[in-house]
Amino acid sequence: MASVRPLCVIGLGLIGGSVLRAAARAGWDVFGASDATVADPRVEPSVAAALERAAREDALVVLAVPLPAVDEVLRLVATHAPDCLLTDVVSVKEPVADAVSRRLPNARYAGGHPMAGRSASGWDAGSADLFDGAAWVVTTEEETSPKAWRAAVELALACGAQVVPTTAREHDAAVARISHLPHLLAAVLAATGADGGSLALSLAAGSFTDGTRVMGTRPELVLAMCEGNRGPLLDAVDDALGRLGAARGSLASTGGLAATVRAGHEARQAWADLRDADHEEIPIDLTDPEAFETLRDLGTAGGRVLRLEDDTAIGALPA
Amino acid sequence: MASVRPLCVIGLGLIGGSVLRAAARAGWDVFGASDATVADPRVEPSVAAALERAAREDALVVLAVPLPAVDEVLRLVATHAPDCLLTDVVSVKEPVADAVSRRLPNARYAGGHPMAGRSASGWDAGSADLFDGAAWVVTTEEETSPKAWRAAVELALACGAQVVPTTAREHDAAVARISHLPHLLAAVLAATGADGGSLALSLAAGSFTDGTRVMGTRPELVLAMCEGNRGPLLDAVDDALGRLGAARGSLASTGGLAATVRAGHEARQAWADLRDADHEEIPIDLTDPEAFETLRDLGTAGGRVLRLEDDTAIGALPA
Repeated sequence: MASVRPLCVIGLGLIGGSVLRAAARAGWDVFGASDATVADPRVEPSVAAALERAAREDALVVLAVPLPAVDEVLRLVATHAPDCLLTDVVSVKEPVADAVSRRLPNARYAGGHPMAGRSASGWDAGSADLFDGAAWVVTTEEETSPKAWRAAVELALACGAQVVPTTAREHDAAVARISHLPHLLAAVLAATGADGGSLALSLAAGSFTDGTRVMGTRPELVLAMCEGNRGPLLDAVDDALGRLGAARGSLASTGGLAATVRAGHEARQAWADLRDADHEEIPIDLTDPEAFETLRDLGTAGGRVLRLEDDTAIGALPA
Repeated sequence: MASVRPLCVIGLGLIGGSVLRAAARAGWDVFGASDATVADPRVEPSVAAALERAAREDALVVLAVPLPAVDEVLRLVATHAPDCLLTDVVSVKEPVADAVSRRLPNARYAGGHPMAGRSASGWDAGSADLFDGAAWVVTTEEETSPKAWRAAVELALACGAQVVPTTAREHDAAVARISHLPHLLAAVLAATGADGGSLALSLAAGSFTDGTRVMGTRPELVLAMCEGNRGPLLDAVDDALGRLGAARGSLASTGGLAATVRAGHEARQAWADLRDADHEEIPIDLTDPEAFETLRDLGTAGGRVLRLEDDTAIGALPA
């Protein structure tokens, strides 16, 4: 599906660099810019130059920088490309939406977040197939610009992903539990394991290495992600502390861990069941005034948008 | 390295079934028995029959049952094969050593624990290569029978593993941190994630799926392992609660998680450094009265025994 408009990616690390390559794979006209030096003919000499080109060519602009850099890039967007359709691939959505509201109150913006990654970072770690089959959140609020929403969805689908429509708030609460908390628990596990010295590290096998894998990521990236989602992450950490404390109490008093382990097993099974579920395709008429509500319900139920057919979004609802 | 003595494996689940296959691959004469029905010509009709054959053939007996079944199997060993050399592959070592002392006070016993596994369980999930390159603890106490120690080491090496010599106490403290705590944290993570509903599970990507993988294991096996190491696991859980609570406090008060994430990153790096370290080969004379002390020091330093050459153990010490 070739886009009618070019794509301008600001920030060319693992995610931005992969978005640029994946959209190019789908036949899109792509260019971008990065603070880091990237030797690629599609890279403009500066962020300002890339945004000026985006304004000339009416490109879709994608912010692909860590959260702490978003505000400064938005300042440049407001200066050089204030009328472009705008999306992003930052790992939290409410803080980005707030920054967009401040810097570009009239922006046509829909937030995005592809749920894919790897421990390696930077342009060289990227690849065109990083998003194939992955979930890609596109924020779907009452006030979201339909044009920006459609552009963000087209980008996600072109990159090989499936779109999960939801609000920024629900996104941030969900990723606190399934992305940010896992990073914190991995940090706690790694440090507690290493406190056992070389003997413990020498004995570490699958459960430790899997559980700490994401700690191979550069700390700055983990910090930008986790610290940027402070409120929802606090809620998730409190839940985890409650559960771990209950396990501790039960182990100390009765020696039993059945409630903890069975709940964990059932939860993992619920994840596997959702992953393996059969899906029913449902068409959603995007001209319907309640289309965005229907789309959000699809996301809440674990469903995804598979493709667009003119003014219809084809959703997949797990059975 | 073919053994002078046959191998009798009691319990033919994932680990026992893999030990039987791996030793057979090395040319050992193997047989075994299991409560579960296993259709294999090397399987005796009952545990008692297998142990009677072990006594007749002077086999090395390996206990490969979950901890809760150890005592009953030891009772059968005391009845049918009290003079055989004895080892085990159970995931905790002090409780097994205590049970051996009670049931078979004169046993020539050295405990064992191969650090390998997978989420699937049972005979059918086993394979001859499960232990290739893995660490395999052999308990090396002052009072350990040198004959039983050598037999357990020969078995581990024949199965393709590398031997980590240490005490039961140090083993149990280490695995609480790098095996049992990871299972508990995986349970907590899975349940906290599933509390986010289908939306959260639909967004779950690498960090959640890696961090919860071990919850695919049958709960009974996780419980037998974790509950059997109560004291050391309590210590590890308390350390983890302290670290997670500190992260919570820091996130709530300053919004920062740098100390937690950097410690986690450094700990993961320490694990990777040990895994990738160059090794110096050191010969350890097993006729030296202080050989076991030297071997334990090797284990404490993250080293392993690679092979036996007559009365010399060849250790690998990380640089």
